[in-house]
Amino acid sequence: MARVVVGMLGMGVVGTGVVKLLSNHKTLTLKRVAVKDLDKKRDIDPGCQISINAEEVVNDPEIEVLIEVMGGEQPALDLIVKAIESRKHIVTANKEVLAKHGPELFKLAREKEVAIFFEASVAGGIPLISTIQRGLGANELESILGILNGTTNFILSEMEEKGESFEAALAKAQALGFAEADPTNDVEGFDVAYKVSILAALAFGQFVKPDDIYRRGITHIEPIDFEHAKEFGYRIKLIGRAARINGNVAARVEPCMVPIKHPLASVSGSNNGIVVNGHAVGELMMVGPGAGQLPTASAIVGDLVNLSTALRLQDFASYFHSPVGDQWQKVTDPENWISPYYIRLEVEDHPGVIGKIGSIFGANQISIQSIIQRGVEEKGASVVIITHPVETGRVEKAIATMKSEEFIKRSATCIAIFDGKSSSVK
Amino acid sequence: MARVVVGMLGMGVVGTGVVKLLSNHKTLTLKRVAVKDLDKKRDIDPGCQISINAEEVVNDPEIEVLIEVMGGEQPALDLIVKAIESRKHIVTANKEVLAKHGPELFKLAREKEVAIFFEASVAGGIPLISTIQRGLGANELESILGILNGTTNFILSEMEEKGESFEAALAKAQALGFAEADPTNDVEGFDVAYKVSILAALAFGQFVKPDDIYRRGITHIEPIDFEHAKEFGYRIKLIGRAARINGNVAARVEPCMVPIKHPLASVSGSNNGIVVNGHAVGELMMVGPGAGQLPTASAIVGDLVNLSTALRLQDFASYFHSPVGDQWQKVTDPENWISPYYIRLEVEDHPGVIGKIGSIFGANQISIQSIIQRGVEEKGASVVIITHPVETGRVEKAIATMKSEEFIKRSATCIAIFDGKSSSVK
Repeated sequence: MARVVVGMLGMGVVGTGVVKLLSNHKTLTLKRVAVKDLDKKRDIDPGCQISINAEEVVNDPEIEVLIEVMGGEQPALDLIVKAIESRKHIVTANKEVLAKHGPELFKLAREKEVAIFFEASVAGGIPLISTIQRGLGANELESILGILNGTTNFILSEMEEKGESFEAALAKAQALGFAEADPTNDVEGFDVAYKVSILAALAFGQFVKPDDIYRRGITHIEPIDFEHAKEFGYRIKLIGRAARINGNVAARVEPCMVPIKHPLASVSGSNNGIVVNGHAVGELMMVGPGAGQLPTASAIVGDLVNLSTALRLQDFASYFHSPVGDQWQKVTDPENWISPYYIRLEVEDHPGVIGKIGSIFGANQISIQSIIQRGVEEKGASVVIITHPVETGRVEKAIATMKSEEFIKRSATCIAIFDGKSSSVK
Repeated sequence: MARVVVGMLGMGVVGTGVVKLLSNHKTLTLKRVAVKDLDKKRDIDPGCQISINAEEVVNDPEIEVLIEVMGGEQPALDLIVKAIESRKHIVTANKEVLAKHGPELFKLAREKEVAIFFEASVAGGIPLISTIQRGLGANELESILGILNGTTNFILSEMEEKGESFEAALAKAQALGFAEADPTNDVEGFDVAYKVSILAALAFGQFVKPDDIYRRGITHIEPIDFEHAKEFGYRIKLIGRAARINGNVAARVEPCMVPIKHPLASVSGSNNGIVVNGHAVGELMMVGPGAGQLPTASAIVGDLVNLSTALRLQDFASYFHSPVGDQWQKVTDPENWISPYYIRLEVEDHPGVIGKIGSIFGANQISIQSIIQRGVEEKGASVVIITHPVETGRVEKAIATMKSEEFIKRSATCIAIFDGKSSSVK
């Protein structure tokens, strides 16, 4: 393997892991690292120049490959663009930058004949990107779906196993370093939407805009929902999906009731689990650590190893030009997506409530499979409804109508029932 | 992608799948196919020259890549050697040839500057080889283990689910085309041993001789063993393992009691499931179709796509030279492998039998965790023993001693209890 000089932006948890793993790779020389805070105590010395000036890393002509593990949209985007413009190859874990700016970045990389490697941006240590790019080349991919966020999977697992509230499970995740102080990106599903955008680009050739992806988070789920899920034979998981349906791309992030026998149901804690469907291979599943210092660093250093093995080849760039396109692709109208739904409503416990709920569902042409009312002492009653498969738009409209009704005490919990399929669109 | 001219040896189930998938890849031109029987009815026309003369394919100077899907040791080995000598790249599904002759083949390929691709040789459609080679480059692998044979997994699943005998489940597998007329390779574990040899080469740099791998098949397992397994919380799976322990390589094929909560326990039917352990990534699992026409063809055509993408690069060979070595590596003494064991003995039902069994185990320093005797009407009794962890050698010695005792009615069933770990060696 040829000697390759590397620079790195960011030395948080993942960057520290990269430094640890690079100590085994004598041909990969880390020359400069840029950090936010020089005085921060670190558990490993990168053994190279550290600076708070990221430009020094990006402008160093000896550096051939830039590792970007600072995260967030800016200044990461500008620094990556500058590095590509000065013809540095990029290894990044930054799903937000890729999902929001993938088309322009890959276009620029093609022009400048450099490669962008991004194994660490999706599914942590699971080599999902290389599997899709190198292992499934004979396949037309039909769908990619799964559990793509370790933080929310940890929270949901804690809530299920220990009966904890969302808030308590989140606090535990924060204490363990699995969740950030501001957990919005994870718990509202933005992080998964970024990953779905990247997976759609890999699978179907073009990125989808994260804002075009139908997205619901897990903050509205309560311990009682896990009890109902168990009773009906489900586990609750935050599922991201990208699928090709009748030539269109469907993309979606939402909590789902996953049948207990489906392999994704047993992916617990901070693990990720992904199911890929190809026209030749059929269904393939990968499970492994979706986050964590060394697993994520494993993905980054794996990219570096692949890159450096090939870097001295003539025509390197033509080989490693990513097949990812430089256009945005449209997502099919999310309101037409069809799924059975689990809906829990907290209502005043008085006669006629079930009738009113039934009328609202009927007016929205939602066919109910079962409806169960449970008295909850003075607090009123829980009404649990399982619908037949129905368009998302109708469910959202019915729930919006009910929220304005007096008999509803709290906003509704609404969880799609996962049929093991990638998707259904009317 | 550059146009690449391809030849193929064999057009059975997998070869037919390759022809089907190649119709989507206009730059991959199949020029010649060699078959055993020209008159055999085929469900697809390869659209090229068909001959019973394999030499015509191997000697055609226009053919750059040879797909070998005839299987078996000879004449496949000689034809592959000839093709490498005339500087053709090889894409093969032949685990037997690779496991028995890997070191010489990879040495020859390096000399002749050609690549050998072998994704289809292990785990069917699961892109396990590319994942290890390209996805986990930052890792020192510690172990690879799992369910590597779809035929035996189908048979064991049928026996478990339907209470069928081994013979009935085998007949069903044969009727469905999952098992060959002579099933020895599958049911005696030879096929898995070949795969373990290849995985050891990928993970630890050198092949191990299939004959050096401790191997036991599934023919001695009876429906009653599944009942006992269920009672104790296990499923019975044929597990292949390769692991590095204290600098040595351990390799092993045997039926195991897999705890029902372990992810491998839920890999059923003809699926394969593999757990890879790397020092950085931790535990990674892949599950998918381990056999079948299109999944296996997916692996072969995937190799072809990767090969053809890079074939026109200068220095192609230096990039694709497999890191697999050209030496054999020694396997640690299998007798020192430690595991708890499930042992079932069919005995005469008269007083003192349990005492005699206990004495024989004691004489071999095997510590018994539990022993249960069950009367089986006039036929005698079943004695089921669960041992504490003990060396394989001691268990085999104890069973050999008991077989010569009059009170034993039939040879013993002996199944290792899988602890979720790759291995334990004293």
